[in-house]
Amino acid sequence: MKAVRLHEFHQPPVIDDVPEPTIGGPLDVIVKIGGAGVCRTDLHIMEGQWDERMHTPLPYTLGHENAGWVHEVGSGVTSLQPGDTVILHPLVTEGLCHACRAGDDMHCENSAFPGLSRDGGMAEYLLTSARACVKLNPETRPADVAALADAGITAYHAVRKAIPLLYPGTTCVVIGAGGLGHIGIQCLATLTATRIIVIDANPDALKLAEQLGAQHTVVADGRQRDAVAELTKGKGAPVVLDFVAEQGAEADGWAMTGEAGSYFVIGYGGTLHIPALDVISTERNVVGNIVGTYNELAELMVLAQAGKVTLHTRTYPLDAAADALADLDAGRVRGRAILVP
Amino acid sequence: MKAVRLHEFHQPPVIDDVPEPTIGGPLDVIVKIGGAGVCRTDLHIMEGQWDERMHTPLPYTLGHENAGWVHEVGSGVTSLQPGDTVILHPLVTEGLCHACRAGDDMHCENSAFPGLSRDGGMAEYLLTSARACVKLNPETRPADVAALADAGITAYHAVRKAIPLLYPGTTCVVIGAGGLGHIGIQCLATLTATRIIVIDANPDALKLAEQLGAQHTVVADGRQRDAVAELTKGKGAPVVLDFVAEQGAEADGWAMTGEAGSYFVIGYGGTLHIPALDVISTERNVVGNIVGTYNELAELMVLAQAGKVTLHTRTYPLDAAADALADLDAGRVRGRAILVP
Amino acid sequence: MKAVRLHEFHQPPVIDDVPEPTIGGPLDVIVKIGGAGVCRTDLHIMEGQWDERMHTPLPYTLGHENAGWVHEVGSGVTSLQPGDTVILHPLVTEGLCHACRAGDDMHCENSAFPGLSRDGGMAEYLLTSARACVKLNPETRPADVAALADAGITAYHAVRKAIPLLYPGTTCVVIGAGGLGHIGIQCLATLTATRIIVIDANPDALKLAEQLGAQHTVVADGRQRDAVAELTKGKGAPVVLDFVAEQGAEADGWAMTGEAGSYFVIGYGGTLHIPALDVISTERNVVGNIVGTYNELAELMVLAQAGKVTLHTRTYPLDAAADALADLDAGRVRGRAILVP
Amino acid sequence: MKAVRLHEFHQPPVIDDVPEPTIGGPLDVIVKIGGAGVCRTDLHIMEGQWDERMHTPLPYTLGHENAGWVHEVGSGVTSLQPGDTVILHPLVTEGLCHACRAGDDMHCENSAFPGLSRDGGMAEYLLTSARACVKLNPETRPADVAALADAGITAYHAVRKAIPLLYPGTTCVVIGAGGLGHIGIQCLATLTATRIIVIDANPDALKLAEQLGAQHTVVADGRQRDAVAELTKGKGAPVVLDFVAEQGAEADGWAMTGEAGSYFVIGYGGTLHIPALDVISTERNVVGNIVGTYNELAELMVLAQAGKVTLHTRTYPLDAAADALADLDAGRVRGRAILVP
Repeated sequence: MKAVRLHEFHQPPVIDDVPEPTIGGPLDVIVKIGGAGVCRTDLHIMEGQWDERMHTPLPYTLGHENAGWVHEVGSGVTSLQPGDTVILHPLVTEGLCHACRAGDDMHCENSAFPGLSRDGGMAEYLLTSARACVKLNPETRPADVAALADAGITAYHAVRKAIPLLYPGTTCVVIGAGGLGHIGIQCLATLTATRIIVIDANPDALKLAEQLGAQHTVVADGRQRDAVAELTKGKGAPVVLDFVAEQGAEADGWAMTGEAGSYFVIGYGGTLHIPALDVISTERNVVGNIVGTYNELAELMVLAQAGKVTLHTRTYPLDAAADALADLDAGRVRGRAILVP
Repeated sequence: MKAVRLHEFHQPPVIDDVPEPTIGGPLDVIVKIGGAGVCRTDLHIMEGQWDERMHTPLPYTLGHENAGWVHEVGSGVTSLQPGDTVILHPLVTEGLCHACRAGDDMHCENSAFPGLSRDGGMAEYLLTSARACVKLNPETRPADVAALADAGITAYHAVRKAIPLLYPGTTCVVIGAGGLGHIGIQCLATLTATRIIVIDANPDALKLAEQLGAQHTVVADGRQRDAVAELTKGKGAPVVLDFVAEQGAEADGWAMTGEAGSYFVIGYGGTLHIPALDVISTERNVVGNIVGTYNELAELMVLAQAGKVTLHTRTYPLDAAADALADLDAGRVRGRAILVP
Repeated sequence: MKAVRLHEFHQPPVIDDVPEPTIGGPLDVIVKIGGAGVCRTDLHIMEGQWDERMHTPLPYTLGHENAGWVHEVGSGVTSLQPGDTVILHPLVTEGLCHACRAGDDMHCENSAFPGLSRDGGMAEYLLTSARACVKLNPETRPADVAALADAGITAYHAVRKAIPLLYPGTTCVVIGAGGLGHIGIQCLATLTATRIIVIDANPDALKLAEQLGAQHTVVADGRQRDAVAELTKGKGAPVVLDFVAEQGAEADGWAMTGEAGSYFVIGYGGTLHIPALDVISTERNVVGNIVGTYNELAELMVLAQAGKVTLHTRTYPLDAAADALADLDAGRVRGRAILVP
Repeated sequence: MKAVRLHEFHQPPVIDDVPEPTIGGPLDVIVKIGGAGVCRTDLHIMEGQWDERMHTPLPYTLGHENAGWVHEVGSGVTSLQPGDTVILHPLVTEGLCHACRAGDDMHCENSAFPGLSRDGGMAEYLLTSARACVKLNPETRPADVAALADAGITAYHAVRKAIPLLYPGTTCVVIGAGGLGHIGIQCLATLTATRIIVIDANPDALKLAEQLGAQHTVVADGRQRDAVAELTKGKGAPVVLDFVAEQGAEADGWAMTGEAGSYFVIGYGGTLHIPALDVISTERNVVGNIVGTYNELAELMVLAQAGKVTLHTRTYPLDAAADALADLDAGRVRGRAILVP
């Protein structure tokens, strides 16, 4: 089968012809890919940024944001049948550790991360496990929803954690209205009645944010802190969701967080520099966020299938993976690029 | 009356003769001081560190850790009578804002902080409000418990927030077994069954920590991260309570925090430097902590009066305030120094 | 001034001429009533149902659902000025007990309940306290929002407690789409993405429920349990909000509650009969609900002023109080009857 | 192998010779039983009480409280090896449904309950799954801990849910200091600083309760409600844990629950009769409890292996199962009867 494989860091991936994956264990599932999202993390992987943590197994197949149809199942799988339409939780977990059993499966102690730690979904077929498959309505087109498997779940997870803090009368600042941010705004608008302030450098992104439910938008032109201070009477916001966290956003985000508030880090690239006195005198928190749980992906699919969360996507054939990655890197993709084998 | 007053930054306070405070509003209370704790924050105030935030009102009376007896009450006070033994919540709050009504009175929007923003308790009498007074058993000696009014409540507040994370089988790392830390250890031991690892540079402090309930102690000799890694099988701890947060502890504390864990900042002085990638790839949190609520102080007094939290104190006459501060600065105080007028 | 006073149980109240209330304590506030809601609880009070609990102080002035304008304030009140438009939290609390400080002011240990335990708001003026006043936009008309002071806060409080249970993909059954229920449906629709099933005997109420956000409506015609079982694939719902809880609804509500689910009792009149084996074998809960906190009333007013919660009301002059009560008793009031002095 | 099998309701079980279980699916595990607890639920099963819910599959092997050693594992099991000492979570779950993934595995949608819905552990060997096995220190004797598999986990689960309500200064009433209750008291004493009041008709049980950490004990002699009212200044307790819930305890428990408090039903047999007005006017809750999660059993084993929870047991050979059941029924067992094959 064809697969988009990375052979060397700092080189574009190439289309290889590789053997199809085969069922190994009783809970294995092979999925025929219907759509594989192209993510900024793919660019970071190509730059070697994830090598230290994930031991990027060169050469290997990229793609950690996948949806498709069940192709074959292991002997122990009873919950799925060939032909089922599925979206895939990004992690392949065992389900036996404390985290999996406590509803924190993204912290599974024995997990694999297809597309990061082993072959991913930018290919015709992907090996995953029964535990990773969220069944969808048969009529759902995988390419339409694939981006929810990583961008979506990550935004939803952060919003869901913030909900108890966002009762009526509060304000939530959203930094970045791009791939993740525009999903986060929709989740906030449908799950809370908080006032949403969105910050982005791109006026088009802000226009979209308004359509999706933002009450206020702020152009990131260097005066964004003042704008938020004015909108919050100098108090800052109880919740800041930072989908950027680089190039100064990480300092803005902390500064915009009010007393007793929480600064949610979702993007990455920058570094926080925070005096402990600043942390304690205001009792602010920094909250980490990474993908989300299987249940959260299932919940998000309920919102998506009800039309409450929608995605902007642009599809490319699998052969054009390098083009899609180059377009993403150059800022030429609006919404999410999706490879369709 | 006599009062310990700071006239200039970087100068020791002096004993002034000042008028006794008088009742202004209907909910005012004047307390005859029985004990006023001497805190590292007093040293920081004298260095001017809190001026920017609190607008230190020079010259003024120090002392933010106070207990004594009710001396006089305003016309609207029905919950207290002259002679009642009381410990004082450090903040004077109005009780009308969202925070006060939500059980977060330390974030009151209209509060005063005697000893920081106005005259404190290193004096014969202190002006506070009925809302700040926790009634004690009449036989309680204020000088014995005064240190719980700030050091105690701060340690208790942090532990209480961490309890849901510290179910049996978990590990809690405590950095610093001094004034606050030795109270925190006792709170952990009485309110959880977590395994407690205590880190301190001082072997005597570690000996005390063991007596108070620590399962493991680690000398902070430069190899403390390795020691914690070994004790946690390389995983780190789900909770780190950092009562130091300066001189490298703030980097240690973050490094010792395990995946999905929370690093509680309680001490201050240092600065955190954390790449956003570190925050998100492990989904760790930084949790701010500042004093605690009135209810928490009341709860802590239940523990203290039951003998489950005890304090090491050394008393000084009010006139010897400068000596007490100098002893504290030089590391000559074991436990807490208390001024007794 | 004129006041609607109850002299004897089982007799209609009469319009008396009584002295205006006067400021007693420093935090007292006198409110000129702009609207006083007429509630089914008033009928129950007249029947003597609340006498045992509240020691109904005959003769006295009815009215526990009040809004208006500040008329006069005590010497210690700084947060309000004559002329301010306010809606009143139903309880007059001290703010000093554990409950008030923990964000549970409806469980204040030293509270009064105007309209139940002392003179209420069906009069030209009402004595309350500064702690009970929620300031509104000056242009708000008190008669338009008064019903939120009790019916609204009660519905909102129950919904707010249920929110963590109502993530996307869940179902919430609402029994009763009348005065409280039609507010509860709006709160659910704006604060969650749960699927809402509404049950009522009145087809008009169900029509309104659909307009307000219900996905399914069920006529209470004796087959309502089967209907809910079918809609939930035999599993029942994780949350049932019972705004009726009499005449069989209380048995229906429990039966419709699914495994590990919670049955919220908000209405009253009936009696629960539940075998302990039923409670434990399914791990279901019964959740009590009574009014709500001051903060919750303030949050609800945010929703109301944003147009997300709206009320159907019918106004009567104060003199027509007996008519309004009779109309309510006879089922002739759609939405809420409001007395306007 | 020998097995204790129930052939008919209302008849004692008999010792049959049956085939050993065999591995069917890839995650199956066969455990050599080291100890099987004898529970009051076994008596209720024999009376047919569970037939309607569990479809008791007569004839079948009793025993739902099991510990032993792994004997054989299926092809997909990697977490266990023959010889491992294990205690068994009472349910065999799939791990794929929302409940399992949310940390509520006792509400698994596709579970089996050995000893209730299929062959249990009163036999030489038991068929379970890898997901049900909690690994223990090799030196642990299964017969010593087997009773924690059901009695223990159930008591621990209820206490763990109550912990957030039981901060210092609160009171917890425990009804019943028998098999479950005496474990619950130990969990309360080690995990909270609440004041514990224990009620039991048996003075010996109360003596044990005091040794285990109860501050007050009350003989259930008909005046128990007054005793609790006096100890709580007429307010009742915020938490009542009712391990009995029959023969009047269920009415006592509700009556002893204070305003805004929670009545935890753990025992069964009685029926609650509660006016909705009682539920709402005090905002009290009834909280169901059934066994607990796998993680909770693992946590409890940490407490047990640290000596913080200990059990009173009496062992019987497997052949003497009928004697053990008769002794239990007649109140001749102190602590828990354990069958040892």
